[in-house]
Amino acid sequence: MDPDRLAQQIRFIVEIDKLKSVYRRTILIDKSRNENSAEHSWHIALMVPLLAEHASAKIDMLKTMKMLLVHDLVEIDAGDTYCYDATAHGDKADREEKAAKRIFALLPPDQRDELHALWEEFESQKTHEAQFANALDRLQPLLNNFYTEGESWKKHEVEVGQVLARIRPLMDASGSLARFAEQLVHSAREKGYLR
Amino acid sequence: MDPDRLAQQIRFIVEIDKLKSVYRRTILIDKSRNENSAEHSWHIALMVPLLAEHASAKIDMLKTMKMLLVHDLVEIDAGDTYCYDATAHGDKADREEKAAKRIFALLPPDQRDELHALWEEFESQKTHEAQFANALDRLQPLLNNFYTEGESWKKHEVEVGQVLARIRPLMDASGSLARFAEQLVHSAREKGYLR
Repeated sequence: MDPDRLAQQIRFIVEIDKLKSVYRRTILIDKSRNENSAEHSWHIALMVPLLAEHASAKIDMLKTMKMLLVHDLVEIDAGDTYCYDATAHGDKADREEKAAKRIFALLPPDQRDELHALWEEFESQKTHEAQFANALDRLQPLLNNFYTEGESWKKHEVEVGQVLARIRPLMDASGSLARFAEQLVHSAREKGYLR
Repeated sequence: MDPDRLAQQIRFIVEIDKLKSVYRRTILIDKSRNENSAEHSWHIALMVPLLAEHASAKIDMLKTMKMLLVHDLVEIDAGDTYCYDATAHGDKADREEKAAKRIFALLPPDQRDELHALWEEFESQKTHEAQFANALDRLQPLLNNFYTEGESWKKHEVEVGQVLARIRPLMDASGSLARFAEQLVHSAREKGYLR
């Protein structure tokens, strides 16, 4: 084994430790603090084998899990862009593309290309895997919001229409997960978690 | 789709959010705080596709990733047992078996059995996947310790012999990763990170 190759892999593994210090708007269900993007990625990667049976189309589980484990790495440079912040979304794509180039380039070329392609596939939302991954990425914060009585929604004055728009892509990925998510949003409104 | 089945899956997904509040002795490389078991699991699951080429035997990547994503869930009830704490290791197996029973039982029976079996496979250390998963579980904290100049080792007065014993299982899983880890330990001793 080429020792330079292993050194490059280790350099990348050390670099991505930084994702543990990128904090999201989502609050942990125990309300102790905001969630970070590394543990969020763990949560949704584990949701793949648990919920794959609900996908509208057969998905490649290994690919979907890898995609979710890497999909937020660009936030190490670009930060987490809050999904209900329209202004920050203006230059999000540019910031993230630049970040992807730098971070994945730490790896040996073949792995750099594989991970960069996985990230792009997620962003493009054209394959069944990318759509199902996106559905899980949207479902998990919904659960955390619901089970903290809308803590983060209330703090950021989020309205029910915004959340319904946010979960709309679930419909293509999974009818049953989309119906479940809609029911949860309506229940959140009834309970006063959402305006 | 049976709505009870989805409800059980969601119940489990909500429950495991608690792993984000189980803190380990490992310190993040930016030294901002202790690492938690959820983000640790993310890190090592992503190390599977990156380092699988170094495994002594061909491994099933999907199985190894699932195994690592679930391997620490028992800590939700049993807590993280510090690897250099001999006393706490006395009843670790009992505490964790009880935890596994409760937590996996939240899932529908087929998924309960699959995840419980994966956790048991990791604990038994008999398959190539379990051995490679264990190697990554031991390599990542070594990296964090090294790149924080031995912050956690110093705090807990860990000695070089203890760390060498801790990385010994890497030899079966991967010769090149074992050699890399040994060199890192010797370099840590030279730099005064380890006694």
